[in-house]
Amino acid sequence: MKILSNFFNPKSIAIIGASRDEGKLGYIIFSNFINSRLSKNLYPVNPNADYILNKKVYKSVLDIPAKVDLAVIVVPAKIVPQVLLECVKKRIEAVIIISSGFSETSEEGKKLEEECKNMIIGTKTHIIGPNCVGILDPYSQVDTLFLSRERCNRPKQGQISFISQSGAVGSTVLDLLAEENIGISKFISYGNGMDINETDLIEFLGNDKRTKVIMVYLEGIKEKGNRFISITKKIAKKKPIVVLKSGKSEKGAKAVSSHTGSLAGSGKIYSSVLKQVGIIEAEDWESLIDYSIALSTQPLPKGNRIAIITDGGGFGVLATDEAEKQGLQLNEPSEKLKKRMQISMPSYVSLRNPIDLTGDATAERYKIAIEECMKSNEYDGIIVITLFQVPTLGKEIVNYLTATKKKFPKPLIVCSTGGKFARELNDKMITNGIPVYPSPERAVKAMKALIRYSMTRGIIRK
Amino acid sequence: MKILSNFFNPKSIAIIGASRDEGKLGYIIFSNFINSRLSKNLYPVNPNADYILNKKVYKSVLDIPAKVDLAVIVVPAKIVPQVLLECVKKRIEAVIIISSGFSETSEEGKKLEEECKNMIIGTKTHIIGPNCVGILDPYSQVDTLFLSRERCNRPKQGQISFISQSGAVGSTVLDLLAEENIGISKFISYGNGMDINETDLIEFLGNDKRTKVIMVYLEGIKEKGNRFISITKKIAKKKPIVVLKSGKSEKGAKAVSSHTGSLAGSGKIYSSVLKQVGIIEAEDWESLIDYSIALSTQPLPKGNRIAIITDGGGFGVLATDEAEKQGLQLNEPSEKLKKRMQISMPSYVSLRNPIDLTGDATAERYKIAIEECMKSNEYDGIIVITLFQVPTLGKEIVNYLTATKKKFPKPLIVCSTGGKFARELNDKMITNGIPVYPSPERAVKAMKALIRYSMTRGIIRK
Repeated sequence: MKILSNFFNPKSIAIIGASRDEGKLGYIIFSNFINSRLSKNLYPVNPNADYILNKKVYKSVLDIPAKVDLAVIVVPAKIVPQVLLECVKKRIEAVIIISSGFSETSEEGKKLEEECKNMIIGTKTHIIGPNCVGILDPYSQVDTLFLSRERCNRPKQGQISFISQSGAVGSTVLDLLAEENIGISKFISYGNGMDINETDLIEFLGNDKRTKVIMVYLEGIKEKGNRFISITKKIAKKKPIVVLKSGKSEKGAKAVSSHTGSLAGSGKIYSSVLKQVGIIEAEDWESLIDYSIALSTQPLPKGNRIAIITDGGGFGVLATDEAEKQGLQLNEPSEKLKKRMQISMPSYVSLRNPIDLTGDATAERYKIAIEECMKSNEYDGIIVITLFQVPTLGKEIVNYLTATKKKFPKPLIVCSTGGKFARELNDKMITNGIPVYPSPERAVKAMKALIRYSMTRGIIRK
Repeated sequence: MKILSNFFNPKSIAIIGASRDEGKLGYIIFSNFINSRLSKNLYPVNPNADYILNKKVYKSVLDIPAKVDLAVIVVPAKIVPQVLLECVKKRIEAVIIISSGFSETSEEGKKLEEECKNMIIGTKTHIIGPNCVGILDPYSQVDTLFLSRERCNRPKQGQISFISQSGAVGSTVLDLLAEENIGISKFISYGNGMDINETDLIEFLGNDKRTKVIMVYLEGIKEKGNRFISITKKIAKKKPIVVLKSGKSEKGAKAVSSHTGSLAGSGKIYSSVLKQVGIIEAEDWESLIDYSIALSTQPLPKGNRIAIITDGGGFGVLATDEAEKQGLQLNEPSEKLKKRMQISMPSYVSLRNPIDLTGDATAERYKIAIEECMKSNEYDGIIVITLFQVPTLGKEIVNYLTATKKKFPKPLIVCSTGGKFARELNDKMITNGIPVYPSPERAVKAMKALIRYSMTRGIIRK
């Protein structure tokens, strides 16, 4: 196993190509570090400057009078081999090459990449990149994203780790997660994956205590499939891996080759391999995030018997349609369970499944339905639809769901949407670790993702 | 054709069951009207009050000393037949029954509904409801929604009309559209559809000049299918009808019967009928809104040759995968067209399709690519992906897209997502009538909806 910890927990860092020019990537990356708690042992490298933001600049990493754990290279592609060679000489074990202009562009770029690759053979140096945005670790504060915080917000500390072959997909997801107040453990954009690839990263994150879910945007596998299969198979038994594989279509595969220089391979073969090793494949961009959030916050269901509880009949029907499509079991509550709920409910409430608490539902009514279904042995998980447009439902239900979320060892998924009033309450739920989805279909599919992972783990028989 | 204009443009209105109690629906609905320009000829009816919000209260509609165009009934179900009889006697032609407790609940309710139905036979009175939230018309300011504006915001004036069998689906969509600053022409929730049903409403909206797109949430068809088929077939040739049919699964159909008392019918038969008459069927809740927005803002494509223009390679690949799945044609630009774009672009830009302007794309680069593709005869529509996390893209592209949106008679769909910075720019585009989707797949499916409607219209051959 390649040693990757220097990338995420470096004690000293060199930024090769650090710049005084605020418009340059080398400035943004350098200022990320200088504003973090990693600013102490930070060394800007640039042959044409003396001081950047009051830090002494070195002409080469070889001039730095201390050990360097991590080097970030952000110079034009042509100069990369030269500065990389100096990193190898300096025995720097972790190097991130941000620069693009390698195998993704031309034959010349391919040669440059080959040259770099050969340079580290037999050394302890490992490389992430090139053609990437690098790493974001909210715990250690490593942040090589060359995107300003104004445009691309950084998520707080959390439990989802995200590997992305594409920098743009990566940064967009980060920005969105930050906006929704969902935390991450580690983010890695590895671009062309010339040395460290998705398999290495999955293996590393599989053993990372702060990572509960591994979320992956994958264009193509960078090495022989066997290692990918054996490692993901092992890790998927320990923690969920959610993968969005792009380039599954013929034209998509072509687009991939000019993007990260990967071979996308056959879409069908990929899907069957991912299924076989126990990876949860996401069908689209939104599912990748949806499933990861559910898997990082919810306990695993022990079966696929689901109750749908709603205050809006139409949403209940839509959730039911999707649940049947996804093969979930929607049994009607037993007479015994119905009676227990009925005691404190008005007669017009429909206690079938979906359980329709109707448009004047109160938090109290939800509480009874949720507790009785959770306590019964008739359901393995609950989808709760809370439409806040009605007059009777408000922050009490948010507080109730927050307070009880660890009370029952069964998953609970919320569907809720709307304007300002609803959004504020939904945001509060999300911040409190309750997964909230804006459509009934997405809520059901998130529940299905939990069931799929229960199957991988052998908790539910296939 | 039943005369429906009194519902949307009444000169005088009676609120039967108007209340002084702020918690009651009869108060919220009455106050909607008193705060609108319809407050002048507004008559509260309630046997137990003298004045409500300074308006004289009548014991019965029969006591009102003027003609009444529209009556809104919001009294308990049991009293509805009595007050309805008075409306018939008063020759009120438009009655909205908000009250629930009819065929959706019990045998007794079914009888009550039957009684009301018989009462209007041979008269000029027509009924919307019962068990509904009624009407919202931002032009005439008719607003029978018993949901406070704080919880359920009202959309501005626009061109989408929305028919919803479910009040909750209806109000949630309204709240969301208002939040996204998308306007509507008319909203009608018709609940049990005891008299006026979806076919009547589609026919009416088909002839309504302010309605450009008819968006429908449908649980079941309320009368014999023949009239629905012949009328929708006729209207779909004039303007797009987008339908989300729920209750398509077995369990979903059961849930429908206890929701609006409809027979949901077979899902497969529905889909084939909808397709046959030229209705655009939405696959899920989000698609219903997504497709309606695209159809209400974009010109129709004359073919299915689409160009994808992006600043993020990964998003380009995902859009490509979905486009191929949806059967769109993604031809590479001709050498001639490539050359025209190449002149003002850096060499590392990928001018295949997707056209990847890369992470340092400027508004100028987009402008060239969009104009050249629009002007060429190689593409029928363009999907533009604008990821605002990168440093070089900002409000210039928003201004450009706004300024040129009517310049070319070809559809343009935008995909963009992220946190605060991106959202503000996206909101601006949406406000300016540019359809923006948060995922590549949803953007592609919206383009496909335009193509589907071009087929209905015979602009593209099937």
